[in-house]
Amino acid sequence: MEESRQLIMLPGPTNVPPKVMRAMIKPMINHRGPEFRELYEGILGNAKYVFQTKGDVVVLTSSGTGGVECAVTNVIQGARKIIVPVGGIFGQRLRETIAVMGGEPIEIPVDWKRAVTMDMIENVIKKEKDAKAVAVIYNETSTGSTIKCMREIGEFCNEHDLLFIVDAISILGGDSLPVDDWHVDICIAGSQKCLMSPPGLAILSISDKAWSTIEKAENIFYFNLKSYRKYKEEGQTPFTPAIPLYYALDEALKMIREEGLENVFFRHKVCAKAFYRAVEEMELVPFTEEEFRSNTVIAINNPPKVSDVSLREILRRKYKVVIAGGQGKLKGSIFRIGTMGKISRAEVMQTIGALNMTFRDLGYESKFDGSISAAKEVFEKETI
Amino acid sequence: MEESRQLIMLPGPTNVPPKVMRAMIKPMINHRGPEFRELYEGILGNAKYVFQTKGDVVVLTSSGTGGVECAVTNVIQGARKIIVPVGGIFGQRLRETIAVMGGEPIEIPVDWKRAVTMDMIENVIKKEKDAKAVAVIYNETSTGSTIKCMREIGEFCNEHDLLFIVDAISILGGDSLPVDDWHVDICIAGSQKCLMSPPGLAILSISDKAWSTIEKAENIFYFNLKSYRKYKEEGQTPFTPAIPLYYALDEALKMIREEGLENVFFRHKVCAKAFYRAVEEMELVPFTEEEFRSNTVIAINNPPKVSDVSLREILRRKYKVVIAGGQGKLKGSIFRIGTMGKISRAEVMQTIGALNMTFRDLGYESKFDGSISAAKEVFEKETI
Repeated sequence: MEESRQLIMLPGPTNVPPKVMRAMIKPMINHRGPEFRELYEGILGNAKYVFQTKGDVVVLTSSGTGGVECAVTNVIQGARKIIVPVGGIFGQRLRETIAVMGGEPIEIPVDWKRAVTMDMIENVIKKEKDAKAVAVIYNETSTGSTIKCMREIGEFCNEHDLLFIVDAISILGGDSLPVDDWHVDICIAGSQKCLMSPPGLAILSISDKAWSTIEKAENIFYFNLKSYRKYKEEGQTPFTPAIPLYYALDEALKMIREEGLENVFFRHKVCAKAFYRAVEEMELVPFTEEEFRSNTVIAINNPPKVSDVSLREILRRKYKVVIAGGQGKLKGSIFRIGTMGKISRAEVMQTIGALNMTFRDLGYESKFDGSISAAKEVFEKETI
Repeated sequence: MEESRQLIMLPGPTNVPPKVMRAMIKPMINHRGPEFRELYEGILGNAKYVFQTKGDVVVLTSSGTGGVECAVTNVIQGARKIIVPVGGIFGQRLRETIAVMGGEPIEIPVDWKRAVTMDMIENVIKKEKDAKAVAVIYNETSTGSTIKCMREIGEFCNEHDLLFIVDAISILGGDSLPVDDWHVDICIAGSQKCLMSPPGLAILSISDKAWSTIEKAENIFYFNLKSYRKYKEEGQTPFTPAIPLYYALDEALKMIREEGLENVFFRHKVCAKAFYRAVEEMELVPFTEEEFRSNTVIAINNPPKVSDVSLREILRRKYKVVIAGGQGKLKGSIFRIGTMGKISRAEVMQTIGALNMTFRDLGYESKFDGSISAAKEVFEKETI
């Protein structure tokens, strides 16, 4: 297949900045030597800035899902019963992980067009007095919905001595998540989403409260957090790390720190807003109810008579823009766009343009001018 | 720390060829799209050539140790009792993995200077009639020893309906291992050893016989081989793969195929032979007994009065050659050199030179001329 530069508008992996890509080809080093120590310590320092935590951070060589398995398997022996809202594929996966790892997931079913609310959580906790943790998908990648009561959940967990575990894979670095302020005990991020690095690393923050539960964990090998903590003292990981991906993450975190977290969040917010406005003008309907809409994943209902597969195929082949389809029960009925990482006006406007052209190719008369103007207006007003 | 090109003579990671490094910076792609499918299918085809198998191959985003955990956890429910020779750190780790994952490891203690022999295995199997598998470290990275009766173990396992599980992380692609011929049911390799790629991927071959045991496996998530098999049909992995590392592995496997497996093995053998000859002339003593010496990891006793730490420190700082020390109970008493991947006369001769110079810096009178001549002679005789 011919190599070609595409605009990657997936909800991960995202467009990786050239500087981050180039960081991968730095000369190979010893993962038990001083160069790796300096690299790893630099990453951890900047990751703490992005997580807004004074707690521990570790980096695993695995996908984000591996990071979630790591979090669950390390707490499950001390916190067997875990409350988990399920409103999409990743909520389902989290529930399944808890069950598979020997825990007891208490599911809160959530409308896939919405996200869990505080009253739903409180209602369940009243009945499940021996629950030890609440685990949530902060941003449900499969539906484009974001939990809006994170601070409240964190405060509640803090007051009731529950662990607060947050899968923030598709949102950390793209929207507000002050881990310490919000009393998040374990937060899981992935390298290939808002952290604009290639896929292959999971990054976890761990609070002191979480550590006291993790102490009880036994019979874990590759995902053993106690090993990661022990080796971290020497600036190492227990098993051979994916060195080039660590170099890339290091560079990306430096770029985020340089831009400033608040600026980064604002940029994501404006890009998402431009998309939602354009979509509205195109007479398309976002899948997610307005109050829960994500700033990092935009999910949109397919217009009637437009084939999901053709839409993505034409976008990719003819206009070199890559977006995602629906997953699970949403397969064929929605499409999803990632607004993550080094996202800016250029990528948003190109995608809106290509979407309009593709719809026309497919015989759906979308309002090209109106959508472009609406998005443009957002960028001009917000001046990013 | 200043970036500097070092000669990486570790038993992994190794010197990655520039072409393989550059493959990592190919434009980002969708891991659920046609480009990844083509990439993954190409990798699997060439990996089958290197494993010499017609069976299945899968690639995981994890270190080699993750690959071993994957193999063990997928068979342990159908094959609880596993015979495992232990003659070094990685044998210990394999035994521990089996125990941690709920299996019953039957240890065959092996002298760390040697490797297991066929009679040792037969003796144990006579007593352990309900054992379901034999799991071995083909090449013990911590001691530089290689099992020399692999074919016999494989035939024995085949005749007695035992699974034969082989950790070949530090040897696959560097020495003979015809997976199908030797009746290996699961073979685990790592990207960063003889496969001369960056670290971060584990590659597993799986026989039909292994699959029938794996069918019984439940409650596995990240390392669930049945998921990997299912997604492989679509040219995908169940969780987001470390795309740049897949590109690198793809390039490295193509290079191996182009050179030809027998040529690659011969090159490793000659490089190792040159090292062993030079070491002898330097009046140093290899840690491993002659008949078990590895062609990919050279372990050498530290000469008396030479500090292990100073040796590696001077080598690295002054001569930019990176080698490894001893692990576990061998810490401080041996040093280890990897002869893996794109190893050739140049790297071997540079390392022998730098070793001699370092020994002199440390006041140990090594026989420079003799060792250089001895190594040179090996290369001239063997004409590689």
